[in-house]
Amino acid sequence: MKLLRFGPKGQEKPGIIDADGNVRDLSGKVDDFAGEAVSLAAIDAIRAIDIDSLPVVTPDRIGACLADVPNFYCIGLNYAKHAAEAGLALPVEPILFNKATSALSGPNDPVIIPRGSEKSDWEVELGVVIGKAASYVSEEDALDYVAGYCTINDMSERSYQMDRGGQWIKGKSAPSFGPTGPYLVTADEVPDPQALRLSLKLNGETVQDSSTSDMVFTVRQIISNMSQFMELRPGDIIATGTPEGVGMGMKPPRYLRPGDVMELEVEGLGAQRQETVAAE
Amino acid sequence: MKLLRFGPKGQEKPGIIDADGNVRDLSGKVDDFAGEAVSLAAIDAIRAIDIDSLPVVTPDRIGACLADVPNFYCIGLNYAKHAAEAGLALPVEPILFNKATSALSGPNDPVIIPRGSEKSDWEVELGVVIGKAASYVSEEDALDYVAGYCTINDMSERSYQMDRGGQWIKGKSAPSFGPTGPYLVTADEVPDPQALRLSLKLNGETVQDSSTSDMVFTVRQIISNMSQFMELRPGDIIATGTPEGVGMGMKPPRYLRPGDVMELEVEGLGAQRQETVAAE
Repeated sequence: MKLLRFGPKGQEKPGIIDADGNVRDLSGKVDDFAGEAVSLAAIDAIRAIDIDSLPVVTPDRIGACLADVPNFYCIGLNYAKHAAEAGLALPVEPILFNKATSALSGPNDPVIIPRGSEKSDWEVELGVVIGKAASYVSEEDALDYVAGYCTINDMSERSYQMDRGGQWIKGKSAPSFGPTGPYLVTADEVPDPQALRLSLKLNGETVQDSSTSDMVFTVRQIISNMSQFMELRPGDIIATGTPEGVGMGMKPPRYLRPGDVMELEVEGLGAQRQETVAAE
Repeated sequence: MKLLRFGPKGQEKPGIIDADGNVRDLSGKVDDFAGEAVSLAAIDAIRAIDIDSLPVVTPDRIGACLADVPNFYCIGLNYAKHAAEAGLALPVEPILFNKATSALSGPNDPVIIPRGSEKSDWEVELGVVIGKAASYVSEEDALDYVAGYCTINDMSERSYQMDRGGQWIKGKSAPSFGPTGPYLVTADEVPDPQALRLSLKLNGETVQDSSTSDMVFTVRQIISNMSQFMELRPGDIIATGTPEGVGMGMKPPRYLRPGDVMELEVEGLGAQRQETVAAE
């Protein structure tokens, strides 16, 4: 299933794509997509709904595919060529950090360049949404805890990330720095999360173009590793790292300016398009 | 006002301490304390309730003073003597990192030593709860965004924090690593958050005993600084750093073992007591 949220910002409703590609309104049937409303049990309940009986809608806007997230986790340096372009060593286990959950944003909403930013940068990533509480899970069982997948732009301000205290969250958390969606594609439709092409165009030019097969740590390994340190919860999202081709890695570096356009996609999970604007 | 949550784990109800020190049940009047339910507007609405008309309860257990947090932020190395004992330089601006929100725990619930942990450590801290969305706020205005304050034990696994990828979240996020409460004390009852004694006893012996007057960055400075990088939201919590006297700083270091007892308190915000147990 492809689940989504549609409507004006702050007033989104949950919906689903039907067999003909139409958006159907699920709001009479389910809670807005967040936390337990995207648990494996809740998703199974959606499977039992007669989708074709639901109202067809033609929304002007698609929101983030989750209304809120308990945690917006990110994995750093998870593609070898990206670690190289960042000038950093390949990690020996997943590098984990967070975005502020208030960074969550719609897939096509403007990306706001923060005040004072000179190094705002793009990162197309495979997003994993957790569907069941996960603590001390094995790599073998790890995918049993996945509700689904989505496209994420893990927007980053490199100076705020690297030069403002050492922990990366300050560079990852500005409002609009987490475009997520358009779809939460349920795990049954993604038989192999390690075989998805992902790419990003800046102003029409392809700058990132890779495959999740190039990840240093697989989704299985990431979930298993994280679950040794914390309990993952339904609705938690994990951005699993970006491949090479970010602005920081260009010679000379190329950072975002107001008016730039990013178009990105993870295979099968839907495309995003953001225009950048300056913070007020 | 002293707000709290009482009842069995997972079934807590919101309550308030009355003029005689009794717990009154607020559950018929307000939503459980999380997010917008602890906004400045929601807290003002509680002031209008006739507390003495509410049922008195005698709970067996006090839960975390918040049911959930959008973000569990922490500030690192915010007391000069603690930075020294950690062998780290004094920061030039607040060091920001996160706990997984699933680490949130009751003030007297057992603290679970994670599997494989050899370096679990205590940290008494002043917690700040945000009451209004805060973006690009000045130091002068920063306290206008505070709903209240609470006692936090920012439990830390030093090896997981330092040796497992470089970002601190892995050492801060185990289940039960965020004892919070007993009370959310509203900001009007804390005229100066920089004049609070905070202390922690390990097995009856005082190991931390300092004052928030020794913070490197004040609550005002922390909120203003963070708000340049992210939007703070109602219900967000910020653990503002710990003073000297953690196990890591002892010679030789002294880490927690099952059966150890921590008793901690921030002046006016209520005391916590946790016994440590091994993870299953």
